[in-house]
Amino acid sequence: MNAESAPVAIIMGSRSDWPTMKAAADALEALGVAYHAKVVSAHRTPDRMYAFAKGAKAAGYKVIIAGAGGAAHLPGMTASMTELPVLGVPVESKALKGMDSLLSIVQMPGGIPVATLAIGEAGARNAGLLAARILALGDADLAQRVAEYAARQSDMVSESVED
Amino acid sequence: MNAESAPVAIIMGSRSDWPTMKAAADALEALGVAYHAKVVSAHRTPDRMYAFAKGAKAAGYKVIIAGAGGAAHLPGMTASMTELPVLGVPVESKALKGMDSLLSIVQMPGGIPVATLAIGEAGARNAGLLAARILALGDADLAQRVAEYAARQSDMVSESVED
Amino acid sequence: MNAESAPVAIIMGSRSDWPTMKAAADALEALGVAYHAKVVSAHRTPDRMYAFAKGAKAAGYKVIIAGAGGAAHLPGMTASMTELPVLGVPVESKALKGMDSLLSIVQMPGGIPVATLAIGEAGARNAGLLAARILALGDADLAQRVAEYAARQSDMVSESVED
Amino acid sequence: MNAESAPVAIIMGSRSDWPTMKAAADALEALGVAYHAKVVSAHRTPDRMYAFAKGAKAAGYKVIIAGAGGAAHLPGMTASMTELPVLGVPVESKALKGMDSLLSIVQMPGGIPVATLAIGEAGARNAGLLAARILALGDADLAQRVAEYAARQSDMVSESVED
Amino acid sequence: MNAESAPVAIIMGSRSDWPTMKAAADALEALGVAYHAKVVSAHRTPDRMYAFAKGAKAAGYKVIIAGAGGAAHLPGMTASMTELPVLGVPVESKALKGMDSLLSIVQMPGGIPVATLAIGEAGARNAGLLAARILALGDADLAQRVAEYAARQSDMVSESVED
Amino acid sequence: MNAESAPVAIIMGSRSDWPTMKAAADALEALGVAYHAKVVSAHRTPDRMYAFAKGAKAAGYKVIIAGAGGAAHLPGMTASMTELPVLGVPVESKALKGMDSLLSIVQMPGGIPVATLAIGEAGARNAGLLAARILALGDADLAQRVAEYAARQSDMVSESVED
Amino acid sequence: MNAESAPVAIIMGSRSDWPTMKAAADALEALGVAYHAKVVSAHRTPDRMYAFAKGAKAAGYKVIIAGAGGAAHLPGMTASMTELPVLGVPVESKALKGMDSLLSIVQMPGGIPVATLAIGEAGARNAGLLAARILALGDADLAQRVAEYAARQSDMVSESVED
Amino acid sequence: MNAESAPVAIIMGSRSDWPTMKAAADALEALGVAYHAKVVSAHRTPDRMYAFAKGAKAAGYKVIIAGAGGAAHLPGMTASMTELPVLGVPVESKALKGMDSLLSIVQMPGGIPVATLAIGEAGARNAGLLAARILALGDADLAQRVAEYAARQSDMVSESVED
Repeated sequence: MNAESAPVAIIMGSRSDWPTMKAAADALEALGVAYHAKVVSAHRTPDRMYAFAKGAKAAGYKVIIAGAGGAAHLPGMTASMTELPVLGVPVESKALKGMDSLLSIVQMPGGIPVATLAIGEAGARNAGLLAARILALGDADLAQRVAEYAARQSDMVSESVED
Repeated sequence: MNAESAPVAIIMGSRSDWPTMKAAADALEALGVAYHAKVVSAHRTPDRMYAFAKGAKAAGYKVIIAGAGGAAHLPGMTASMTELPVLGVPVESKALKGMDSLLSIVQMPGGIPVATLAIGEAGARNAGLLAARILALGDADLAQRVAEYAARQSDMVSESVED
Repeated sequence: MNAESAPVAIIMGSRSDWPTMKAAADALEALGVAYHAKVVSAHRTPDRMYAFAKGAKAAGYKVIIAGAGGAAHLPGMTASMTELPVLGVPVESKALKGMDSLLSIVQMPGGIPVATLAIGEAGARNAGLLAARILALGDADLAQRVAEYAARQSDMVSESVED
Repeated sequence: MNAESAPVAIIMGSRSDWPTMKAAADALEALGVAYHAKVVSAHRTPDRMYAFAKGAKAAGYKVIIAGAGGAAHLPGMTASMTELPVLGVPVESKALKGMDSLLSIVQMPGGIPVATLAIGEAGARNAGLLAARILALGDADLAQRVAEYAARQSDMVSESVED
Repeated sequence: MNAESAPVAIIMGSRSDWPTMKAAADALEALGVAYHAKVVSAHRTPDRMYAFAKGAKAAGYKVIIAGAGGAAHLPGMTASMTELPVLGVPVESKALKGMDSLLSIVQMPGGIPVATLAIGEAGARNAGLLAARILALGDADLAQRVAEYAARQSDMVSESVED
Repeated sequence: MNAESAPVAIIMGSRSDWPTMKAAADALEALGVAYHAKVVSAHRTPDRMYAFAKGAKAAGYKVIIAGAGGAAHLPGMTASMTELPVLGVPVESKALKGMDSLLSIVQMPGGIPVATLAIGEAGARNAGLLAARILALGDADLAQRVAEYAARQSDMVSESVED
Repeated sequence: MNAESAPVAIIMGSRSDWPTMKAAADALEALGVAYHAKVVSAHRTPDRMYAFAKGAKAAGYKVIIAGAGGAAHLPGMTASMTELPVLGVPVESKALKGMDSLLSIVQMPGGIPVATLAIGEAGARNAGLLAARILALGDADLAQRVAEYAARQSDMVSESVED
Repeated sequence: MNAESAPVAIIMGSRSDWPTMKAAADALEALGVAYHAKVVSAHRTPDRMYAFAKGAKAAGYKVIIAGAGGAAHLPGMTASMTELPVLGVPVESKALKGMDSLLSIVQMPGGIPVATLAIGEAGARNAGLLAARILALGDADLAQRVAEYAARQSDMVSESVED
């Protein structure tokens, strides 16, 4: 769902992050929230990142989800160039299993917040859900869908430990 | 600033977390955002936590900031009982320096997001700023103040390394 | 062995924890201790957890074994709402290999104890054995079986390093 | 309170662990549970440890609390020579802040359980409370005191963040 | 020594990094290499960082030393916008002691190198020495001074363990 | 090579440690040093460990190699009950990859030394070589073989990076 | 490309490091920089290392890339015996995933700098690129190729998340 | 006690390591074992280290104790140039508390063993005791003193937790 105008942007440092970040997209789709997904690399395309971050608000985005691995600078740098809320997803890295990604995203200095989620797919899914919770503050219909999603999720947890 | 009605609640597991969490309150005050601060312990007062989390939306809160240390369950449990965005602040613990607090807050399973900030005071201050960024999506005046705060912060960074 | 009434409850955050937690069940079965096993998610079914923990003593349970992974809040939250001994098993998580689960379970604040076992299957098995050791304090027959189990375990350790 | 006969033994690897382990003793005293405290070093007095562990049940103990730091072998070795429940407290070490103590105590192999508590004083206090929870299974009066202690603890948590 | 034109720029994320980074300046001074030192914050002054990095080569710099702490993005972002060699110094952070700074600087993706030194003052001093080693490849006089510095350093190591 | 009398004992906590510990045996065989290998579990067979350690010197052993994983108590406990040099090999554990084994073995308190080698097979092989270095102090022939082994090892390192 | 005379030497502790270190060679080839690659083990061939490091400058090398894993002493020891810039690549180790390699290389004492790159292949590739950046300071043609390589790398980052 | 000829050499990377390493010297003195202590820096005086290691056996040493911090290469490099047993002591470093020192010393590749002790003073003391245990294999008087030292140590452990 890459609509013309969308309240959420999902950006990531590399196309190889997409299998992880797709979980954010899936969560947004399940809740009926439009998004754009694109590759914006802090290190390989700093100009694209600069242009994206500075123009994000004017482009109509309200929340930015940024995923990156290793020395993951994309979420923090984006947050430094926009006033929109930025949600950071640490993508699991090969050697250090995402611990480097996590610390690079979450340990931001005072003044520039990044809302950090868990390492990997669970974190990506939660970034989508958090974006929806934020947007729902100004959208009663979405709030309803968020509540229903949570209820459904709860109902689906069977007590039985076996099939 | 503990006004009658407020968009932000700052909760924490123990009164000893207040010196850290006060940075969230200070950021909110600097941006003119009302808040309530109170102690709600996941472990020592689970009923109070249940009541708070379940009633938070009806009480008029829009964003919840939750700080805790060690096996820090307050942010995640609160997030599981409200649809409001919950921002988690890992308070620095004695032996493990907040690494336990960080992992207990950020490694949430898919389905229940907690927006995690940095360990300690910088994270608390950023929780306040993130709450403001979120509220500013529906409040143009606040958006203006957030932008001015960021610009002021930028201007204050002198190039000189010495006084 | 899911008998009508049982002294031990094995709860876990997700059905996917069962392959790990089954080792607790197996240990209890080997010692002739009845148990109930069910899925109770701190985050996805907080009401179920609340009801379970508050009613556990009245339901006849004497010891609760709780397994969870990642930001593992189930053991600690359960311990905060019952006076029964709660044994926590950190389930191995994908990225951080259970280090997050371990710290989230063991680093409880003073006032609310969780008896934490090793990460994964060995910890689950030991949770079953620890439950039996606890129950054996008031059950001489069980104490006898626990002692025999330990002796058998010792006897089975052949000195030979090869088959 | 070093009574003639007592249901709880508090042992520790070194007299320097007493400032930490005293929190276990204090918790037991607050709940009216008798205990003996003594230094038993796995490494410097292995014979004393063997004698203590093998004789603990006959000496009338029902629960053993064992605290140690660094390569902390006391809890695990004691657990290997008694059928009583052993509660392990990782004492904070100088260089590694108790992470070594924690892993040496909690990562026991399947077959020999040690109920591990948090690093340091909070863990010691919780070891005392856990011992009481265990003994309360067979002592209705103690169960009453444990419940009152928990309620008192809960009541003492004021909502106010400042004095 | 802040000369008009200089081959080395020392930049840092905050004035509070100067006590650490001064060791780089001291090493350069000892070797007679001119430098400029200034505060350039990746997060609080991204425009200044962009301008600095993009203009560094034209400004006559040959080597850039960048120090930062926590989610330390300054070295990597600078490296992404210049072809000059960038040397990164992880400044010791409060809670995680510079482990976050180190991983945020060193774990760069393939394509954008940052030459990372040790955490703290030793790393800063070594950044100065490494800059001199690099510049000495094209400056025989400096190469001589580098060799003499190393020899002097070696000579100063007395065998005696006591004064 | 399990000769009648041997200067080296290789003990390990479980038969599953043998694939790792075999590298110690192989190194000893390559150097012509006799050894005995057997399973001695600190936790499952504490009496066997006690008997082995107390009798090791009288049995003619001069060096003991002890391998264990997780909460690895075998090397330290053995060292506490003999005056022979004890070499500890941390066997790689499943979840924590041997970091728990390493800390449990190396972080011994002052008074009881364990000579710790690297995690896994390389450490086991080095334990064999270290035993030989120790025995060679009193055996000129063995010293000659140790020197030849080292020279051979050095000669085998071809400069070429490809076959 | 193992030319007669070359500005870059790639050394590594073992032939098994070559699959990782080849990425450095590939980067140098892509930029038209000649190199020699050989195995030089700090531990198994200390004399070869000594001779190599002491003679590196006279042999015409300008930059040394050194890769090693585990207790990785090759980069630091080489740096202690030459005034050339030494770039260190932590090769991923089996148990600790290169965290040991990283710390052994990067945590050098003040006085002896090693320019450390990321763990594994990305770090090796970046070592090649960093060597080129350094050599480009005195070679305008190479500087041009480095700039083009960066531009090409940037252009290759498509915005699309899917093929 | 710096006698003319001595069986033990204590070397360390810096005079600042002496307050830690003195514990090794104290242990040797208590057991009547002669030693020489000197500063030999792997990084700042590689020639001295080469000369020392290569000549250690001819100089009459039988055991070498080597202490170092951070990227601690002294023990491993020394072990690569002598056939004597080398005992490594990780000195506590400032930022990483000796975890870097420990991994740099213990994670040696197969072929070159270093007998690693605990971080800091306890490890240094144990290095002295381990040297004595090794020398005692060929010195019955020393063996007697080692046994008496251990017995005295055991006797000194009072059971009382308070003075």
